[in-house]
Amino acid sequence: MRTVYVNGEYLPETEAKVSIFDRGFLMADGVYEVTSVLDGKLIDFEGHATRLSRSLNELEMKNPISKADLLEVHRELVRLNGVDEGLIYLQITRGSDGDRDFVYPAEDTEPTIVMFTQNKPGLADNPAAKRGARIISIEDIRWGRRDIKTVQLLYPSMGKMMAKKAGCDDAWMVQDGFVTEGTSNNAYIVKGNRIITRALSHEILHGITRAAVLRFAKEAQMEVEERNFTIEEAKEADEAFTTSASGFVMPVVEIDGASLGDGTPGRLVPRLREIYLDEMRKSAV
Amino acid sequence: MRTVYVNGEYLPETEAKVSIFDRGFLMADGVYEVTSVLDGKLIDFEGHATRLSRSLNELEMKNPISKADLLEVHRELVRLNGVDEGLIYLQITRGSDGDRDFVYPAEDTEPTIVMFTQNKPGLADNPAAKRGARIISIEDIRWGRRDIKTVQLLYPSMGKMMAKKAGCDDAWMVQDGFVTEGTSNNAYIVKGNRIITRALSHEILHGITRAAVLRFAKEAQMEVEERNFTIEEAKEADEAFTTSASGFVMPVVEIDGASLGDGTPGRLVPRLREIYLDEMRKSAV
Repeated sequence: MRTVYVNGEYLPETEAKVSIFDRGFLMADGVYEVTSVLDGKLIDFEGHATRLSRSLNELEMKNPISKADLLEVHRELVRLNGVDEGLIYLQITRGSDGDRDFVYPAEDTEPTIVMFTQNKPGLADNPAAKRGARIISIEDIRWGRRDIKTVQLLYPSMGKMMAKKAGCDDAWMVQDGFVTEGTSNNAYIVKGNRIITRALSHEILHGITRAAVLRFAKEAQMEVEERNFTIEEAKEADEAFTTSASGFVMPVVEIDGASLGDGTPGRLVPRLREIYLDEMRKSAV
Repeated sequence: MRTVYVNGEYLPETEAKVSIFDRGFLMADGVYEVTSVLDGKLIDFEGHATRLSRSLNELEMKNPISKADLLEVHRELVRLNGVDEGLIYLQITRGSDGDRDFVYPAEDTEPTIVMFTQNKPGLADNPAAKRGARIISIEDIRWGRRDIKTVQLLYPSMGKMMAKKAGCDDAWMVQDGFVTEGTSNNAYIVKGNRIITRALSHEILHGITRAAVLRFAKEAQMEVEERNFTIEEAKEADEAFTTSASGFVMPVVEIDGASLGDGTPGRLVPRLREIYLDEMRKSAV
């Protein structure tokens, strides 16, 4: 039985509830973050806390918790649930004034804050990272502000199911002929020593792992090119991968049935995953 | 204190809660309907029940309640809460298997069903319908399946706030230069005896009120043309209006600062509202 956090209280997970009038439930009026835990410590907490503030600001939503308190709750949940490897999910919604209206509730309405852990032993040593992921491409029909990390996750969830039905692991989304991102990760292709990934905009999530990985790639003398690419170009790439807070750097070995290179995770991507994990373990808090 | 309905139970509204792991809360994985009540009876219940089934089917979601039982719960909520004029909100989500995952939970996971009333005395005799609404236009950046009535309502909610900040009542959304619909209603313009509204597609909600109003309009010898129109064309129209389950037929008198006709609700639209209300009162159940 997990202990979870709801609006200042630590509760058994089965007692963790929100009002049916919560705007997170009625209107998807909420944002979230996922922070990984390795060796019982938080990976890039600072990056997630900063992006959380940005998402809240973009939606004119109050932040109900200081960064210091947020860190404290993260650590307490890790402790209470004995998490060595896993993740912490955090969601903040605009709360509720006890009824439903498209108009935002009064300024003094308290946001809802919910946090819970997921224990994932073997997250760093994930067999999927050795095998590599097989992906399909699907059309990107999400809303236009994917840079705000909202809980409007129905289409990414549908995309994951489309991949599963096709016998694959995940889907990359394509808009106007160009790859935007994966269902819950940023997307990259590799040509020789060069990493190609879409530039930041409103069209994609500003991945915390993306920022760290591109920094480490440059430090390791890899080239980084931020530009659009098509699925056709991706199929011809030497390697491909995704990044996310809980997947870290995940090799992609097949796109729409076409194997990349020899169908194994290649050379650059596994090295990048290793660098990322080494560096993030060092800076974990 | 309202009595609301949650998963088979009638509860005081303050005790009506769902798990924080409900996919409606975590992923906006849910659909909804709003049915109006006039004279204590349900308006177009059949239409809403049919669309609900369609939305659930499109998302491969189970329907947890038969149409007969759904009608019974609607009526019981009307009775328990003494609703003469108002509305009934219904939401069904994919439920929860007690954790968070993009992959849908097992087939036997029970959906969550929530229903509550809103008492709105004067709904039919709404002063706003005599004054007419002032609207602004905003870009439509919602996802691509607006024909499925999901709870991904953040952008419509933001749109309503943009209108409010501009001193107006509502916003019409524009995509590729053409009006799609209002934040929570379908959009129409009137030229002489002709009603012009966007044709049904994945881009707009298939309004239950829309279907009834267009039927009544034709019966009343008004012309109906289903095609795209621009904001510029709308500003030049004789009249304009919106339809929705709880707004019925609502005149629009100003678009982006430009008054339509003489700035009053006009002639055709008030007549259409009257016809709609008369007919729907007759067929209410």
